[in-house]
This record gives sequence, C-alpha cells and structure tokens, in this order.
Amino acid sequence: MRYIGVDLGGTGIKAGVVDERGEILSKGSARTGQERPYQAVIADIAALCERVARDANTPLGDIKAVGVGVPGIFDPKTGRIPFCANLGWHDVPFVSEMQKRLPLPVFVGNDATVAGYAESIAGVSAGTASSVFITLGTGVGGGIVVGGKPYSGAHGVGSEIGHMILSMGGEPCNCGNRGCFERYASATAVIREARKAVAAHPESMMLARCGGDPARMNAKIAFDCAKEGDAAALEVFNGYVSALAHGIVSIINLFDPEVIVLGGGVSMAGAFLLDAVREAVKPLVLFKDMGCARIELARLGADAGLIGAALLGKE
Amino acid sequence: MRYIGVDLGGTGIKAGVVDERGEILSKGSARTGQERPYQAVIADIAALCERVARDANTPLGDIKAVGVGVPGIFDPKTGRIPFCANLGWHDVPFVSEMQKRLPLPVFVGNDATVAGYAESIAGVSAGTASSVFITLGTGVGGGIVVGGKPYSGAHGVGSEIGHMILSMGGEPCNCGNRGCFERYASATAVIREARKAVAAHPESMMLARCGGDPARMNAKIAFDCAKEGDAAALEVFNGYVSALAHGIVSIINLFDPEVIVLGGGVSMAGAFLLDAVREAVKPLVLFKDMGCARIELARLGADAGLIGAALLGKE
Repeated sequence: MRYIGVDLGGTGIKAGVVDERGEILSKGSARTGQERPYQAVIADIAALCERVARDANTPLGDIKAVGVGVPGIFDPKTGRIPFCANLGWHDVPFVSEMQKRLPLPVFVGNDATVAGYAESIAGVSAGTASSVFITLGTGVGGGIVVGGKPYSGAHGVGSEIGHMILSMGGEPCNCGNRGCFERYASATAVIREARKAVAAHPESMMLARCGGDPARMNAKIAFDCAKEGDAAALEVFNGYVSALAHGIVSIINLFDPEVIVLGGGVSMAGAFLLDAVREAVKPLVLFKDMGCARIELARLGADAGLIGAALLGKE
Repeated sequence: MRYIGVDLGGTGIKAGVVDERGEILSKGSARTGQERPYQAVIADIAALCERVARDANTPLGDIKAVGVGVPGIFDPKTGRIPFCANLGWHDVPFVSEMQKRLPLPVFVGNDATVAGYAESIAGVSAGTASSVFITLGTGVGGGIVVGGKPYSGAHGVGSEIGHMILSMGGEPCNCGNRGCFERYASATAVIREARKAVAAHPESMMLARCGGDPARMNAKIAFDCAKEGDAAALEVFNGYVSALAHGIVSIINLFDPEVIVLGGGVSMAGAFLLDAVREAVKPLVLFKDMGCARIELARLGADAGLIGAALLGKE
C-alpha cells in the first residue's frame, strides 16, 4: 500500500509517495507562499500531491491516504488547525479544504511528532514501541511515540517538550513563561550564550570565526570551536549539554521511553554532542542500576517529516 | 470477577477483596515489620490475602489475581523488585516468593501508579483514558494512565514525577540531583519554606500554631494560617502553588492528559488549594484557546492503593 506524505513548512512544502516501510518512491516541493489566503496554499498542496503520485506512477486510487505534518497544532475532532504561527493560520478547516481537492482520507500531525514517528518506523528508533524525538533547532520541538503510535495528547497540545519548565523563573520564553526547556536547549540558546562568552572573552576563537561580528554567531561556530578546545566555547558547550541532559532526565523520569532521539540543526554536531550528552545524563538518572532510554541521533534527516506524515495513514 | 489488592507500605500492609468496578468487599491490615527478612514479610502478605478472601466469603479459586502496590520499582520481566527504599529491599524475587504461598497470578505496580489507576477506574478520573496522578506527600509521587492502562515506562522507571527537574541547579534533592519537582511541591517543601518564613517573621501566626517550636511545623499549619490570611503563611502558600502549577504545566505540555489528579497529604487542603492551583495554571498553559487537562482532587483517599493494585489483575 502507498501513502502520500506532506511536510508543510513556513517557507516550503515537500511531498512524496511513501510505501508502508517508509521508503520514498517520489518526491517534490513547492514554495509555501504563506502570505496568500490559506485556500491558495492548500490548493498548491493538493496539486503537489497529484504531481508526486504521477511521478511514482501511482493512480490516486492506489493511494490509501494523505498525511500532512504541520508546524502547529491540529484538532482531530474538528479537522481544523486552530493555530499555526509559522503560517499565520488561525482556525483553518484544513481537512475539509484538502478533501474538496483530493478524493483521499487526510490525516494531520504536528511536524515534530510525525518526524519522531518516522524515526520509530524507518529510522534510528525503528522497532521500538516508545520513543521521544527532540528537535534541537531555533526552538525545541518534540514527538512522542507510545505503543508504536504517534501521541499528541488528549487535546492535541502534548509533546511540546520545548515548553517543559526546566528553570522556574529563568530565561523569558516567547510563550510568555520563564525557564522553558527551549530557552536552554535550542540553537537560539547556544547563540545567546556564545555572544555573552565572546563579550567576556574577546580572545575566544568564536569571535574570529564570526568575522568579529557576534551578530553572525551560530551554534555550529560555537560547537566547532568547543571541539577545537577553545575555553570559552567549551564553557558554552558544556552548559548546553548540561541543560539538555537535565531536560532528557525529566523526560526519562516522567515517561521512561525506550529511546530518546536527538534531531534538528544542533544535532548535526554529531558524535561530539551525542557522547557528551550520554555522559551527562548517566549520573542524573534516578535508578542507576536499572535500564533507561538509549539516546541516539536522528537518522532520516530532512525527509523525516514527509515520511512520518505519510505513515499517519497506516493507523 | 474478584481480585485481591495489597497496599504494601514501610509501616503497614493493607489488603482487600475488590470487584471489577473497584468496590471493596473486605479489608484487613497487618504490620509490615520491614526489619525482618523479606520472606517473612511476604509470608504475612500471603496470609493476609487468605484472610481477606475468607472475610469476603470468596474461595481463592474465585479470585482472578493478586495485585500489589509497592513503594518502589518493579521489573515485570524478572518479577523482581530491584529497589524499594522504604522496605530496605534490594533485588527481591517478589512474584516467585508470593507464588510459593498463593496459587494465584501476581501483579505488581508502583504505589502511586496503582493509586492513579484506581482513580481512573473508580475515582475522580473514572472513564478517562489518560490521567496523571500526583501524590503530594513527604515526597512527590506520580501515576500515569495512558489508553486506560497504568503506564510505568519501558524500563519500569517512569512516572517519577517528583524527579522532573523544575529548577535546574536549585534545591538539593535526596536523589542526588538539584531542583527536582518534589523539592518544591512536597509537604517537606512547605515545611522548609514555612520555617524560613517564621524565622524572618516571628509575628506570623504559624509560629504560635506550632507552639513556638518550628520543629513542629507541618503543611497543614502553614496552609491553615494562609487560609486565615496570615501574610507570611500566604507567601509560603503562594510560592507552593506557583511551583506546583509550573510542574503541572510541564506535564500538560509534555503529556497533555485528560485529567490531573492531586492526592496525598497536602491535597487534604481541599478547595483552598485546588482553586488556587487551577488559577495559577491557567495563564501558564501554552495554547490558551485549546482545551487542556482538568485538575481535580483525588477521591478514593487511603483506599486508592489497594483498589488500584487489585485492578492490575484486570489487564
């Protein structure tokens, strides 16, 4: 059986035909054009779905369902997207608008949730029944899989891992609270701390690597310099790893999944980050003689969203 | 069908025969005597099970299973209790020792987990598929129900809600970490803050209520004085409510259950606490226009553990 998966982002739309094991059979993309009315965006999504089906030589009648990952929340009871900041959408009747244009069942999930689901079917957590996927990007997103199924909670507002409170009263967050996990574990947090570090230590190689302009700082520069032994960068890196480890321990103590998967831009630091995080988590877990979640790097990269969205149709 | 439930504590053992709706048909108790070898404690548990079955006029052949709630963790793969601080147990082959003495299937769960399960079958969260039970006592325990079933995680170390990190680098915890939720949301936290408050404000009525001796402070004194308008006590109460609300918001953002149930000694403060917590949670939730978990007080009281343990046999 075949499925269409759509990864709907603020800038671009990706879609593809995917088989039941999560293999991509065809793939295409389009500009989101999120400044347009939602009807126009949804018409382009539907057209892209038809195009990738043709590219995979698959008549729509042989497609079981279309799954769409969105950077927001979805209400499965109404089929509407109540809120999606990156698209500027409020209360969009997504499923009915899609079905006006495509004669297929439509499923919708949060983008991080479907990416985590994809990893649990075809990626690093394949074959596990429970996993938590953490996207370390501009913010921190999360995808929870329980009993082999994507889990969005009772009201569709769960798996917002970036907004666990890690440091009550701490750094102010865009959400209005203080001390959210993403204030410490996102690329944004690395950049903030690296800028502080070069202000205090202008001799740090981080400053030279961003051409003397802290406005050009990014997480890769900070972690690359840490890898090369720059003291100020190492301090930024160690602080980041500690915060990430504390958040992971909260997830382990609460949810105890089989695997925790690190994805998103910051995770591109690879083994340097992974090894440090594993070491930092070890002394923090509650029951040191019991097993606890493996920590792994995501494997599917930029295709995870598309694959996971497609596989929503398997349920 | 009938079940035996056992609530095994550091001081006492309670057991009872329970029907499938969670109604108690007979009940008995014994001293734990945890200073004795575990075999002796388990022999007394088995004898108590036989006694309550007789009291309910139920031959053991009509009992489907025995469920036991323990103040520790359990490894369902081995049938052993790897660790139980209150009993001083390490790696006790609990299931096999029980089955030497009783010809019945034996199920074991964490005490807070089974209490939360009981509430979800026969208590305040009855009929819901997902709930999180928080026991606010000397420490903070947790019970998670997902898909109508008790959830202990992939390695049996989940639902340790008291050890989510709420304030990274904050108050030192018995577990070795700093800033665990239970350092802010337990009765112990109330007592610690109330003692600080009477040191700074000896005019507070809290000091008089504990006979001028801060060593006799407890959470009830602090909350009663807050209710009566004592300024120092109100500050302790408000700080407690804020911390509890932040922890609840972490649970909502991560797990988004249908209901959050507050139990344990501190929850005896009733509506005074519940109303304040509900108000404090409201502005902290991420999606203010979406539904989110109801917050309720536990209803089954001291019997929750026994009932929930018994109902483990229903699975």
